[in-house]
Amino acid sequence: MTVEDNKNNDEAEIKRAIERYVEALRARDIDGVMSIYAPELVAFDLVPPLKYVGADVYRNHWLEGWSLLQGSMGYEVADLDITVGDDVAFTRSLNRSSVTLSTGQKTDFWLRWTTCWRKMGGKWLIVHMHVSVPFDVQTGRAVLDLKP
Amino acid sequence: MTVEDNKNNDEAEIKRAIERYVEALRARDIDGVMSIYAPELVAFDLVPPLKYVGADVYRNHWLEGWSLLQGSMGYEVADLDITVGDDVAFTRSLNRSSVTLSTGQKTDFWLRWTTCWRKMGGKWLIVHMHVSVPFDVQTGRAVLDLKP
Repeated sequence: MTVEDNKNNDEAEIKRAIERYVEALRARDIDGVMSIYAPELVAFDLVPPLKYVGADVYRNHWLEGWSLLQGSMGYEVADLDITVGDDVAFTRSLNRSSVTLSTGQKTDFWLRWTTCWRKMGGKWLIVHMHVSVPFDVQTGRAVLDLKP
Repeated sequence: MTVEDNKNNDEAEIKRAIERYVEALRARDIDGVMSIYAPELVAFDLVPPLKYVGADVYRNHWLEGWSLLQGSMGYEVADLDITVGDDVAFTRSLNRSSVTLSTGQKTDFWLRWTTCWRKMGGKWLIVHMHVSVPFDVQTGRAVLDLKP
């Protein structure tokens, strides 16, 4: 295979991993979600603290978040751009999260998602991810009504 | 040189580029700041919109932001972690921004910074960056008082 074939294969593999991740999120399948993370994951999340260190810590964060929800989780990935090197890759996308809280309140907003990957033992895994919404400097509030 | 030597050199080159970037930010030297970005930069910034596409657009965003400031800009990069592949790399860090607005108001907060790089024509450049603060789901407010 040529270098170009390898890059195309790696890009396709990461794309499939993200598709499986989205399915797992929708189903609130924690093992499916975790299967994309390296154990040493460092996540910059929507909510404090500044960083989550270790996949186990982030696993608990997902479970705590899901415990506040009713039913399945709406999740989609748009505008996905994947860049691959030999054993290092990154992606960016705009993702839509739509959930119903156990209080009945609905939230539906677009966020920014950056993922950073390493190929380890032949498998691509996320070692760092960053998810956020921008904020309004005048009001100090997170801006949740933006659309791509 | 071995593969390991190359990785060490690439990591050192990115570290130096970030050091120069920080100096340029402090001095509000727009050409210095721009020298780290690829023309096709896509930035997820602290403030709306969801994304800034193109280094020229982001240049104007810096200049507009700086026009609201008094004096130089305080900026430091902490907890920097660099991962390099053959021609793809990424970094994460917690950065402190401290400025005085032209109104006299001071802001001083820590943010999360993720940068994604490609080596092009022998030079490492940022093609994607993501900068954010987390927000408080209860209040809807950006959280600006977190410390590493």
